[in-house]
Amino acid sequence: MGSKEEAGKLEWRISVDNGTTERLVPESGPIERIFLWLKGLVMKVIVERLSKFMRKTWRIGADEPAKVVHCLKVGLALSLVSIFYYMRPLYDGVGGNAIWAIMTVVVVFESTVGATFSKCLNRVVATILAGSLGIAVHWVATQSGKAEIFVIGCSVFLFAFAATYSRFVPSFKARFDYGAIIFILTFSLVSVGGYRVDKLVDMAQQRLSTIAIGTSICIIITVFFCPIWAGTQLHRLVQRNFVKLADSLDGCVEEYFKKKDVLKNDNEDEETNMKLQGFKCVLNSKGTEESMANLARWEPAHGSFNFRHPWQQYVKIGAAMRRCAYCLENLSICMTYETEVPDQAKKHFGEACLKLSSASSKILRELADMMNNTRKSSKMDFLVFDMNSAVQELRETLKSVPVESNKPKEEVPNNQGDRTMSMSLHEVLPVATLVSLLIESAARIQTTVEAVDELSNLADFKQDSKKKTGDNKAKQPPLSS
Amino acid sequence: MGSKEEAGKLEWRISVDNGTTERLVPESGPIERIFLWLKGLVMKVIVERLSKFMRKTWRIGADEPAKVVHCLKVGLALSLVSIFYYMRPLYDGVGGNAIWAIMTVVVVFESTVGATFSKCLNRVVATILAGSLGIAVHWVATQSGKAEIFVIGCSVFLFAFAATYSRFVPSFKARFDYGAIIFILTFSLVSVGGYRVDKLVDMAQQRLSTIAIGTSICIIITVFFCPIWAGTQLHRLVQRNFVKLADSLDGCVEEYFKKKDVLKNDNEDEETNMKLQGFKCVLNSKGTEESMANLARWEPAHGSFNFRHPWQQYVKIGAAMRRCAYCLENLSICMTYETEVPDQAKKHFGEACLKLSSASSKILRELADMMNNTRKSSKMDFLVFDMNSAVQELRETLKSVPVESNKPKEEVPNNQGDRTMSMSLHEVLPVATLVSLLIESAARIQTTVEAVDELSNLADFKQDSKKKTGDNKAKQPPLSS
Repeated sequence: MGSKEEAGKLEWRISVDNGTTERLVPESGPIERIFLWLKGLVMKVIVERLSKFMRKTWRIGADEPAKVVHCLKVGLALSLVSIFYYMRPLYDGVGGNAIWAIMTVVVVFESTVGATFSKCLNRVVATILAGSLGIAVHWVATQSGKAEIFVIGCSVFLFAFAATYSRFVPSFKARFDYGAIIFILTFSLVSVGGYRVDKLVDMAQQRLSTIAIGTSICIIITVFFCPIWAGTQLHRLVQRNFVKLADSLDGCVEEYFKKKDVLKNDNEDEETNMKLQGFKCVLNSKGTEESMANLARWEPAHGSFNFRHPWQQYVKIGAAMRRCAYCLENLSICMTYETEVPDQAKKHFGEACLKLSSASSKILRELADMMNNTRKSSKMDFLVFDMNSAVQELRETLKSVPVESNKPKEEVPNNQGDRTMSMSLHEVLPVATLVSLLIESAARIQTTVEAVDELSNLADFKQDSKKKTGDNKAKQPPLSS
Repeated sequence: MGSKEEAGKLEWRISVDNGTTERLVPESGPIERIFLWLKGLVMKVIVERLSKFMRKTWRIGADEPAKVVHCLKVGLALSLVSIFYYMRPLYDGVGGNAIWAIMTVVVVFESTVGATFSKCLNRVVATILAGSLGIAVHWVATQSGKAEIFVIGCSVFLFAFAATYSRFVPSFKARFDYGAIIFILTFSLVSVGGYRVDKLVDMAQQRLSTIAIGTSICIIITVFFCPIWAGTQLHRLVQRNFVKLADSLDGCVEEYFKKKDVLKNDNEDEETNMKLQGFKCVLNSKGTEESMANLARWEPAHGSFNFRHPWQQYVKIGAAMRRCAYCLENLSICMTYETEVPDQAKKHFGEACLKLSSASSKILRELADMMNNTRKSSKMDFLVFDMNSAVQELRETLKSVPVESNKPKEEVPNNQGDRTMSMSLHEVLPVATLVSLLIESAARIQTTVEAVDELSNLADFKQDSKKKTGDNKAKQPPLSS
């Protein structure tokens, strides 16, 4: 990429040179040349850095157009709320407090509907709560005569302490963190501010109406102009992660058993590497999943999700997936193991391992499909059965290793039978680890299947149209023969 | 715990009953008894839930007193800033805009010094930048006559778009997220607000001075009253995580090889379980580490950390530790494996595995010690050498498995020699996986050691006082014999 770009720049410079040939003196002095060279260097560095930054910034928008849409929506919301300033009747209507409407829009407008809803609700409820409490404290303070400042000071201290402390309680913080801040803010403003403002109730009322204006503008724009739902994003994230896991699993095992078969070109190699590393996204997605699940529950029904869609189940699915990803992370041990594994060992296990990994990844892809169509799967039971029989087969293969040629159906030729015997554990260790991790990941995938099944029951996913039989689990599926 | 509590409550109820014996009628009717029973149940549920919540809340404070201190500081800062309201000269000095000082304190005051600094700086710089830009736009707008509203509207839209977009660039977001919000806010307020306010410059000046007051109060309180440094917290977090990893590693391997030796009591079991699960904290600490490293770089020199302490290196150490934790996570595979491992296999590997795990955990503890004393370690090279020879020994043990009794020094009695021969790979698979994971975790621990070494060089940790020789690496350490 770098060299391509440089070539492009060179070309550009040459064409510029061609255009200004008359100004160039071929026999310029050495100082001049050094100066020109330095200038070119500095320009190049600046242009390069700037263009790199611009490209990076551009790519963020190109990769996720939703982000650009969000920015446009912020601009729109602010322009709308500004109208309150420009129009005299509106401005007077809120007693010159239009500033609070602008502030509300800036602070409350978030990229997802859930986040905006959550902040709006937090802001409104906390303002009402703290406002009435502040007015009450102010009334008590004025009644207490000389102790007024003391009463106000103590109550501000106490409530600020309590609200700040509540922000450390995890279950509270997840939902009402912003509300706690607004509570402290409003309470201080009302109770302390009341010391100087005469018409306290008027002020509170005006502030509430400006906040109401700000929040309604936010909610209207966030819901009706290209809404970005936290729930949909969470759903897609989990679905994408299933595909990534499947790609990584397939890729790793294939890579291991076909290592020296073909030399790929660089481009293909990079793509394969991207796929192999896919599980890393799953490793790091805990925070995103949890915060999105928290935001999604504020959202009304949208798409195929009801209001009470079991978003917390996605967190459980995510945790189950992460356990699969831990297994995949450790598969890399086998890839980079220093001792060379004998080809015969690879041959012995290759088929069974590939069978298991493809059965496992099929399940992961089917799960992604389930999520994508929000339907129950009719063939999941078959696939799980397949995977379990692949596990059983792999176990059988394991049992047949050190005992001499008691399994003639294996592809190990007879003249190598003696060598199978002499394989030390040390030699087959990487393969043994791979096998063990594959078997474990199969067990963990099964837990994931159960988690997704639970989701499909909780959320009433529709039945698959290609429904076959209701009681696959009891019957022997035809694929197992 | 639950039964203890209930017993306590029962006792309490009995004593209450004793006090009010005269009111109790032994032969009360069945309805009355049901009513009493229901009342007791409801009270019990309410009291239990409330007391549970209170205990949980209390424990948060008891576990980390720093949090309580932070709450007290917020109360103090707010009480201090309220003085501007109570004192007439101060109040008039900022033209009745003292409200902005309160708002600044509420929004800017964070629990760590770094976070508070970062927010203060963001707020001040963004306000100045956006304020001057807003005044400029306002001036242009007034010059353009009839197009005034159009110019203001477009500029608000454009700048809001740009600032919101910049919040999606990760490197920018990590440091200037809050600044971007304040920029949009101030720019809108000044440019739009300028449409109605006559003395725009005066307003801007007053707002700046109130923000200056608010931020200075925050900074003074956060630095001089029991400061909570993000850097120190990050340092301690990494140190604690080393100990947790060491505990988990030790615990897992010991548990595996001594499974059926002793039956422990419940209490001890719970404690062991806590230790075994310690690595999970490491798995989930990525986000915390990154955000703390981002905050710590705003902090001035404190304790044994300079201003330019290499905080980003902690993120690298954390990543290296997490790779160790992935290995430990998969050690659980071996613990819960369904097939029973033959005792002789456990015996065969037990010694070497325990040796390696204790050598590894010694390194982790030494790393924790290095962090704790911020000194370089004189015995690290010895420990690493030890670990590597333990790895080598384990490899030798592996090589000796399927070949009949070619290692007479092992504790396997001769009459069991034949059975060693007949162990299938299937039987020893869990042990083999354990061995393989232990060897891998040793390699990953070495990467961690390198990362900590780099930190000790970058941060100029002092030399160990128990320094022995400068070139341990070249020499054969005495421990290896």
